[in-house]
Amino acid sequence: MAYANIVTALAVLQFLIFGFKVGAARERYGVRAPAVMGHEVFERRFRVQQNTLEQLVAFLPGMYLFSRYFNPLWAAAIGVIYLAGREIYSAAYVRDPAKRGPGFGLTFIANAVLILGGLVGAIRGLV
Amino acid sequence: MAYANIVTALAVLQFLIFGFKVGAARERYGVRAPAVMGHEVFERRFRVQQNTLEQLVAFLPGMYLFSRYFNPLWAAAIGVIYLAGREIYSAAYVRDPAKRGPGFGLTFIANAVLILGGLVGAIRGLV
Amino acid sequence: MAYANIVTALAVLQFLIFGFKVGAARERYGVRAPAVMGHEVFERRFRVQQNTLEQLVAFLPGMYLFSRYFNPLWAAAIGVIYLAGREIYSAAYVRDPAKRGPGFGLTFIANAVLILGGLVGAIRGLV
Repeated sequence: MAYANIVTALAVLQFLIFGFKVGAARERYGVRAPAVMGHEVFERRFRVQQNTLEQLVAFLPGMYLFSRYFNPLWAAAIGVIYLAGREIYSAAYVRDPAKRGPGFGLTFIANAVLILGGLVGAIRGLV
Repeated sequence: MAYANIVTALAVLQFLIFGFKVGAARERYGVRAPAVMGHEVFERRFRVQQNTLEQLVAFLPGMYLFSRYFNPLWAAAIGVIYLAGREIYSAAYVRDPAKRGPGFGLTFIANAVLILGGLVGAIRGLV
Repeated sequence: MAYANIVTALAVLQFLIFGFKVGAARERYGVRAPAVMGHEVFERRFRVQQNTLEQLVAFLPGMYLFSRYFNPLWAAAIGVIYLAGREIYSAAYVRDPAKRGPGFGLTFIANAVLILGGLVGAIRGLV
């Protein structure tokens, strides 16, 4: 389970770092709280963080369920795809939001495998 | 625990599907990233997803704590109420945001029971 | 583990209460769904809730990992700092968003200790 937990902790750290970049963009571009609009680059950073929040909330139970019903090592490997997908997503989104598809897709596929795997595993556990 | 885990996985899938509908509305109504405003129907879909994110973050630890300190089968049953509440909320919100109350209420009550139940169970565990 | 679970449940309840205050501000200041802008005080309450959502998503796995690899009692103690930080953050933000730093910092440090502690613990678990 240690590898799965390491990847879980890294996913949370990645999210916190995305949050830091939002805070830095807020300062640099003079977007005063509570506003979350007003500068294009700030908004891109903010959307990266918010979308990562959404994906992380699926990822965390996905890692747990997939580890429990299949294999924590495989969960960790799929989690690395999630981490890479998020980095690609973040870098692409900040350059050009229209290019955010591939990174999003990687993360989304990783999450879908984790959750559907966990669901199938739990259903098999009933039989 | 399998029933509770099945309901947990379904709640995450439901959330991912709400996210898909946001993406579809983004395309259909021409709301270009990073914007999250600009078309009423998109904004309704987006708020459904965001509110579900908020409720899911309470639901996941609620399911865990209630299962641990009371009963995973009861947790699963309450979780089905959560799932139904979210479907009602989503359908009502997209038709008319003023009608979102009942669906929200069902979800909120389910979450409150799970979390307060978990809290009471953990406190009893101390004695 | 009971203390860590009590603090976890309290953190979720705190978040739900922040959400209630958003709903109350929505009524009082006439911000009609799906809008999330239009009145400064509503926007402050909303940002308090949204920022707490972000921090809670880091806090929950942090509590779990730190409890597992170090000590659930210490996790609970750090969690109390998180809870206090959020209360300070909320009160300060609603009065003046420019004063939100200290409360945010307390929460953030608590989360960083929980997650980095969990990461170090999981890595040590490999050796």
